[in-house]
Amino acid sequence: MSLKPLLTLSTALTTLLATGLVLAQEPIQPIALVHNINLAQVELGKKLFFDPRLSKSGFISCNSCHNMSMGGSDNLKTSIGHKWQQGPINAPTVLNSSLNLAQFWDGRAADLQEQAGGPIANPGEMASTHTLAIDVLASIPQYRIEFEQVFGKGEIDIDKVTVAIAEFEKTLVTPNSRFDRWLMGENTLTEQELAGYNLFKNSGCVACHNGPAVGGNSFQKMGVVKPYQTDNKAQGLAGVTGNDADRFKFKVPTLRNVELTYPYFHDGESDTLTEAVEIMGKLQLGRTFTDEENALIVSFLKTLTGDQPSLILPILPPSTDQTLRPTPFD
Amino acid sequence: MSLKPLLTLSTALTTLLATGLVLAQEPIQPIALVHNINLAQVELGKKLFFDPRLSKSGFISCNSCHNMSMGGSDNLKTSIGHKWQQGPINAPTVLNSSLNLAQFWDGRAADLQEQAGGPIANPGEMASTHTLAIDVLASIPQYRIEFEQVFGKGEIDIDKVTVAIAEFEKTLVTPNSRFDRWLMGENTLTEQELAGYNLFKNSGCVACHNGPAVGGNSFQKMGVVKPYQTDNKAQGLAGVTGNDADRFKFKVPTLRNVELTYPYFHDGESDTLTEAVEIMGKLQLGRTFTDEENALIVSFLKTLTGDQPSLILPILPPSTDQTLRPTPFD
Repeated sequence: MSLKPLLTLSTALTTLLATGLVLAQEPIQPIALVHNINLAQVELGKKLFFDPRLSKSGFISCNSCHNMSMGGSDNLKTSIGHKWQQGPINAPTVLNSSLNLAQFWDGRAADLQEQAGGPIANPGEMASTHTLAIDVLASIPQYRIEFEQVFGKGEIDIDKVTVAIAEFEKTLVTPNSRFDRWLMGENTLTEQELAGYNLFKNSGCVACHNGPAVGGNSFQKMGVVKPYQTDNKAQGLAGVTGNDADRFKFKVPTLRNVELTYPYFHDGESDTLTEAVEIMGKLQLGRTFTDEENALIVSFLKTLTGDQPSLILPILPPSTDQTLRPTPFD
Repeated sequence: MSLKPLLTLSTALTTLLATGLVLAQEPIQPIALVHNINLAQVELGKKLFFDPRLSKSGFISCNSCHNMSMGGSDNLKTSIGHKWQQGPINAPTVLNSSLNLAQFWDGRAADLQEQAGGPIANPGEMASTHTLAIDVLASIPQYRIEFEQVFGKGEIDIDKVTVAIAEFEKTLVTPNSRFDRWLMGENTLTEQELAGYNLFKNSGCVACHNGPAVGGNSFQKMGVVKPYQTDNKAQGLAGVTGNDADRFKFKVPTLRNVELTYPYFHDGESDTLTEAVEIMGKLQLGRTFTDEENALIVSFLKTLTGDQPSLILPILPPSTDQTLRPTPFD
């Protein structure tokens, strides 16, 4: 009798057990695949996400600042709004944003649906109004039909618009990163990347950057050990709670796909991961990473880039003679 | 012996012959499918077409004004350029643009490759320079590798960039419109649409709007019978030839997908097809269409909407620490 099958089984069991052990012990969990999704809402929401007619100018869509070709961000320090206004804060990635405990850097929106209504009517962003945006959509027969197919009979309203956009955004997860595959037992990381992860864990980064999104699940003060110097006026959570103790508390950003979502921090003032890791070490942990340590952590962070959503660009239904035209230069 | 098979054959032959006859006689030909395409260049060109890092701001890509969700146009009177500058002219659709005899309204670019270099370096559009754009691309390893895979060893240069973009644009054709299927013998048009087509033919519209693109193959004076009134300063072909006789001569726009490419004319001053048909009748043909005639022609024009290109949104390679950052607000 050959021992080979038994040995193979034993190896497989060991791997499985080790994986279970790894998963149980690690402060970061793999991104879960999406389930319980309303596909009809997703398809409609995708159109709305890409439709610049939700803006006053007819030029800015959700995708302008949460560009699905660029990690769900615009890769600018702060975003460009209506009439080229300079936004007050760095646009957070829409990728995996369903995993956040709240939306916006200051958490002022409870969920994706509440968030989606904000930029449409923000004079510094898309500069439309909910009424105008709905009037535009309701003037387009293909949209009227699709809203009825998705939500049943009744008028289009802002709730239906934001429900659909939020449902689309829930699909924007990025599973299968090399790090997640390592978590699940595959041998996908280099020694350098593993050393970087261990340093990330042992030096305390995981205190805030943990869970499936490697962040996004708490508000923390920017500048725990040393104050953060910035010209940016954002006050963080204090603007929502009115509590002075919440000044400079921001939602911890997800580190998923962080290689794609430069520049970093709420003011977008860090252009590179190297600089961001250095500043985080000093300000949050009171620790100066050596160049070698910094490079190890950066190499780990780049393993968090997952499969980017594969999206067929939607073809938008055309405006009709009755549709109000955009007014970009008024 | 049954006669049925013979009769069926005879019917099929009659249809084929009739189709050949129709095709031979009609002034409009079906959009041909794309052949002789370099797919490697297409894939690279698609990335470049969607990459806003070709602009100074990092915000404007080719797709911003030639939006593939909106008939390859921006549906604005005149486009929005760097720092929200108001463009001088209506952005023509990129769809089927390979069929044009020259590019831009005034034909100042001989072909798509020459066109593609223009907006990148135009201070009122993407406001970059060819040198800066190439520096950005060359700083990104994934682009360096892909350019070598596509063009062989050597530095990235603007010719390679524009060759790739042009090759991608050559794929943006829209076959299978209901009108083309009618041309090929299918029974896809209503009586009203056919009456509209006959009126379009018999009243002289086809003198300029003919061929596979239903336009795009000649320069013609805007305002043949009566002068066109506009505040727009564009002079047309005269600006290219220096010949005063070419004042107000513009490339005849394609009418393919015209339902999607509102507003109309080089100044974008016509919001609706109804208005555009009315003005064309009066100014080019000296003819006032009745409301009923106008509606017939408009119903025909809407049969020219073809299959829109189905594009998977490209995932752009991220910038590196060495990549020059965009400067939208400088």
